Amino acid sequence: MIRKPFVLGVAALLAASVVVASVAMADEGMWTFDSFPTAKVKQLYGWAPDAKWLERVRKASVRLEGGCSGAVVSKDGLVMTNHHCVSDCTVALSSPGNDYADDGFYAFARKDEKICPGFEASILQSTTDVTERVKTAAAKGTVAEAPTLRATEIATIERDACKGDERKRCDVVNLFRGGQYKLYVYDRFDDVRIAFAPEQQAAAFGGDPDNFNFPRYALDMALLRLYRDGKPVTFADPLKLDPAGPKAGDLVFVPGHPGSTERLLTNAQLAFQRDQFLPWRVEYLSQLRGALVNEGTKGEEEARQVSDTLHGIENSLKVFKGQRGALVEPSFFAVKVAEEQKLKDALAAKPDLRAKYGDPFTDMAGIVAAQQRVYLPYNMLETRMGAGSVLLFDARVLYRAATERSKPDADRLPEFGSARMKAREGAVMAEAAVQPALEKLEIAFWLDKTREYLGADHEAVRAMFGTRTSQEIAADIVANSQIADAGFRKRLWSNPEQARGSNDPAIALVRTIDVAARAARKAYETQVTGPTSVAAEKVAGLRFDVLGHDIYPDANFTLRLSYGVVQGWDDPVHGRVEPFTKFSGLWGRATGAYPFNLARRWVGGEGKLPADTQFDFTSTNDVVGGNSGSPVLNKEGRIIGLAFDGNIHSTGGSYGFDPLLNRTVSVSSQMIVGALKNIYGANALADELVK
Amino acid sequence: MIRKPFVLGVAALLAASVVVASVAMADEGMWTFDSFPTAKVKQLYGWAPDAKWLERVRKASVRLEGGCSGAVVSKDGLVMTNHHCVSDCTVALSSPGNDYADDGFYAFARKDEKICPGFEASILQSTTDVTERVKTAAAKGTVAEAPTLRATEIATIERDACKGDERKRCDVVNLFRGGQYKLYVYDRFDDVRIAFAPEQQAAAFGGDPDNFNFPRYALDMALLRLYRDGKPVTFADPLKLDPAGPKAGDLVFVPGHPGSTERLLTNAQLAFQRDQFLPWRVEYLSQLRGALVNEGTKGEEEARQVSDTLHGIENSLKVFKGQRGALVEPSFFAVKVAEEQKLKDALAAKPDLRAKYGDPFTDMAGIVAAQQRVYLPYNMLETRMGAGSVLLFDARVLYRAATERSKPDADRLPEFGSARMKAREGAVMAEAAVQPALEKLEIAFWLDKTREYLGADHEAVRAMFGTRTSQEIAADIVANSQIADAGFRKRLWSNPEQARGSNDPAIALVRTIDVAARAARKAYETQVTGPTSVAAEKVAGLRFDVLGHDIYPDANFTLRLSYGVVQGWDDPVHGRVEPFTKFSGLWGRATGAYPFNLARRWVGGEGKLPADTQFDFTSTNDVVGGNSGSPVLNKEGRIIGLAFDGNIHSTGGSYGFDPLLNRTVSVSSQMIVGALKNIYGANALADELVK
Repeated sequence: MIRKPFVLGVAALLAASVVVASVAMADEGMWTFDSFPTAKVKQLYGWAPDAKWLERVRKASVRLEGGCSGAVVSKDGLVMTNHHCVSDCTVALSSPGNDYADDGFYAFARKDEKICPGFEASILQSTTDVTERVKTAAAKGTVAEAPTLRATEIATIERDACKGDERKRCDVVNLFRGGQYKLYVYDRFDDVRIAFAPEQQAAAFGGDPDNFNFPRYALDMALLRLYRDGKPVTFADPLKLDPAGPKAGDLVFVPGHPGSTERLLTNAQLAFQRDQFLPWRVEYLSQLRGALVNEGTKGEEEARQVSDTLHGIENSLKVFKGQRGALVEPSFFAVKVAEEQKLKDALAAKPDLRAKYGDPFTDMAGIVAAQQRVYLPYNMLETRMGAGSVLLFDARVLYRAATERSKPDADRLPEFGSARMKAREGAVMAEAAVQPALEKLEIAFWLDKTREYLGADHEAVRAMFGTRTSQEIAADIVANSQIADAGFRKRLWSNPEQARGSNDPAIALVRTIDVAARAARKAYETQVTGPTSVAAEKVAGLRFDVLGHDIYPDANFTLRLSYGVVQGWDDPVHGRVEPFTKFSGLWGRATGAYPFNLARRWVGGEGKLPADTQFDFTSTNDVVGGNSGSPVLNKEGRIIGLAFDGNIHSTGGSYGFDPLLNRTVSVSSQMIVGALKNIYGANALADELVK
Repeated sequence: MIRKPFVLGVAALLAASVVVASVAMADEGMWTFDSFPTAKVKQLYGWAPDAKWLERVRKASVRLEGGCSGAVVSKDGLVMTNHHCVSDCTVALSSPGNDYADDGFYAFARKDEKICPGFEASILQSTTDVTERVKTAAAKGTVAEAPTLRATEIATIERDACKGDERKRCDVVNLFRGGQYKLYVYDRFDDVRIAFAPEQQAAAFGGDPDNFNFPRYALDMALLRLYRDGKPVTFADPLKLDPAGPKAGDLVFVPGHPGSTERLLTNAQLAFQRDQFLPWRVEYLSQLRGALVNEGTKGEEEARQVSDTLHGIENSLKVFKGQRGALVEPSFFAVKVAEEQKLKDALAAKPDLRAKYGDPFTDMAGIVAAQQRVYLPYNMLETRMGAGSVLLFDARVLYRAATERSKPDADRLPEFGSARMKAREGAVMAEAAVQPALEKLEIAFWLDKTREYLGADHEAVRAMFGTRTSQEIAADIVANSQIADAGFRKRLWSNPEQARGSNDPAIALVRTIDVAARAARKAYETQVTGPTSVAAEKVAGLRFDVLGHDIYPDANFTLRLSYGVVQGWDDPVHGRVEPFTKFSGLWGRATGAYPFNLARRWVGGEGKLPADTQFDFTSTNDVVGGNSGSPVLNKEGRIIGLAFDGNIHSTGGSYGFDPLLNRTVSVSSQMIVGALKNIYGANALADELVK
């Protein structure tokens, strides 16, 4: 999917006659700052950012380690991001009588800004190519040893670069699926405080029905502030808001940290996603969704317990369904086939390429055939064991820590290596809110689905069920496990013998399936993960040799820049969708019933802002989850919007970008400033953003 | 898929080396009795049924109008079928203290046999080709008029054949999707009584985990008796049980009424099923499944209310997932493509065929593109309106009957034509058990999913939600609708004005969306149903011209005969699966926890039958839902088994048959006789079956 527009079958055929101009534009790509396609953008739009523009934006681009992006918007370290990026913080800070999630949060003075527990932010300072070093190290042993040799070299590079400096973060990142390795050094901030968040219902007006849709009326914004040594961090050249907002057709840029795309997968890997993995995920999560929705009808407390998990699942479901939808479009997949054919043709035509790479596409097809056999036991017994249950997850950490501890480092599961034991201990000892109704639901669901997928006669299934039903087992664990008690966890952590032999029902269950779970993991790692990394590195090399280096790597939560224009789209189902919503539109859409009810401070507020104030808008930028909280910049480098979502067509963005249909959805700077001043009375913050 | 073996990708590749012999056998086909492939079967197995054998079997083959098959097994009209085919009856006959579903039913004497309410049985007596007559009538008008002209002619043929005789049933059946029309005349029996049914847990041991799986230990049998004028009906030559059971490798035959297959769909139609329809159904039903499972955790009463619906959905889900699984196997679909290519090649080579049929494949592709746009509104607003809610369903019948009644017949919705009004009235006035918890769940689910699929801005969605949440609307209807009251329904039925204007909340809701629902139905009928029938008739004609008449039609709940052998299979995941389970195997598999708990009369019964008594077995017969209750016959025409399920690979059987993997699952006659005598003490019935 390399800088080539593709069309989405019927959808695009309908749209093609109307916006033919877009086909040539193809605002595709999540570009690294050091290989931004300046010439191409200049050719398309008559202007492109220069090195100075790029450096300034890079220095103000924030990565929130929880999985979001943001921008430094004042000299005093104020950071703008999305509300949904700080909801963990508002929930954690809430107490009876102070529900910052429902009611919002506003620090009237700096001293009222509160630390977001566990929040961490990073700003990229430098990148260094270490490809040769990593590849040379990996090549020093056999193919089977390569993953370990590679990991060891990477750990050395990272350690040498950071030298234990807690104010730095040093990551060797893998770009182009093994094509390049680069050392990224970040400034690291672990004192992140909240300054402002609107009410949940203002940020997420329209809830799941509106998620990934447009028209939209969401103020999905929040303000954090970076601190060091108890004082706000100073920035010389922050990005500033332009309260005028964008105009249709404006050239705009979105810097940020897109989390993950899979545009460089081979056809065989994509077919596995399309035909096996995604349908399985949708089926699994849909059933869990139904259970959670119904659990919420039991009462207010149950609804509260399941709410976050449910929203996360609903969001994932839209993405997975969109991804599958893109892959089953014949014209979409045809582009993927043609791309791969180009590489295969080159391989067939050039003996030197064959000598260098062999036939990685056939290798990958064989790996995928193995993956089809081993992915369900691996998922059900290992990676998704417990379906989210905190009790079972912690029980497994405690049980495994106890068994791994006595082994030499080389024989341990990597996450229990001696260097990582402290992190494991920290995580397992952290206060986890165990929600009994949610736990019971998740444990029973996981037991039943494991039996469904692996079969009632599978040895591990027989062992974990024994003579009880899933409901009985789940009820027993929730009623009788002591894992929720920090003192108990501490005792088991410091007493391996006790942890291994405990008759706590959660420990007993994970112990029962531990051998089978390790076997399933081993099978997946040796048959899928390991061989895939080898084949993918070959495909990446071949891609560079055939297509050159003027391409962008798959997203991996490292800093990228996307370009595009403010534009609506012609929807195959809904017809023309205009790029802006206005303040006035909200009032006709608010029914009063969740999720179309207004947040408290908005009720009766129809006169508080001019009717034509821009609310949300769409643009052609190529973004994906992880870009949440990214600023939208105009040519002058001023912030005119805040990206928080994509439209429904963007959910297929993991596999490719359709310039006719994929759209980024952002809050306009008009609304950000207008709401801060006229709805929340947060004038000082509004001024700090702008001036 | 015409008498050609195909293989299922990886699965079949693994299996191929072991059972190559099967590839040549290809026991495929649900053959009509008048075109059974005698020569082919004789060639394969050295023996084939003659006309006399076929006639005898036909005369004892019972169709249960609820959707099952059965066999007359005694001169006194005893009929053997599956337990799951009579569970509606055991539930309906139960009362506090007499739970025939849980405890089973056994009429110690004839006089204790109880009428199954609403049950009806038919036995095919004659078939007559009426293809010319139907096609000539349909050709008398324009293409748009053809469906109505066809329907009118069919109604005339049926009426003339039955002349109002209640002891007959006369159906013009469409075979080969418009290739042939035949008049089927049946003997009709509407006094069907229950003689024996085991406990639900004996019939369905293993529940959903074991459904469509093997090894299996289910006694899924029941005995009914046909009555006329209060006396058992006499049959001269019933089928009789051979208590010896089958041996591995035995040639066996399954007569019965397979419900529906789609093996003659074009590639475009299959791709729609694979990529759109089936994934949508799985997603929709999975969420509903999750909700129902969770509802059952609220309490015993809720569990009871949702149980039947949940089991039905779980069964459907396995089928839909299996169907999708078959269609995404590249080698499976390749066979479909090759078959269609053969027809397309003939079309390209022969101008006379082109003149006769045009290009029906391209026509169908265009229809499918339209279907993709209109199937969701059609399903959500019309065919699946209410997601099973009895209140909303009845409310719509009452509201529509009131509006349709005043129109001339030609303008009415067909189901409200004057000839059908009596049936509508009967259905809406029948006592329907309204289950409040289930109703609430279904109504809220349907509202939310309709908003999800059609969008929050869809006019009908806005109208049906108004200013309330789905939960509020559902709670209002369940609390305040009077639809559950038969007197209220009667008043509305006889007072159209009142029905149209009623402010009953169920009536109000269906009225709110009625215009949109009718429009969605109209769009689907004119863009999909109508044009599909025209194109399918052309494909059928082309198929006959190119492939000859030596083929079998898609299943449509008419009498068919399948041949095969008693055989296990080599499973790609589980390895070799032997064709028999034995009585002794049950005891190691019974954990005591639902669904692996034993029925009451089986507890401690390990010594009641010889350990090696055959329990269930598999054979290569090609069957599908509707065949439930079919006898399995040996060459002598003796019953050696009772078909009740397929293995997991058979769930793709809707689209094709894989001789290596598809298997029919049956109860052995050894177990039927053994259990009747030694576990249930029903010696008289056992003797009646055998002697």
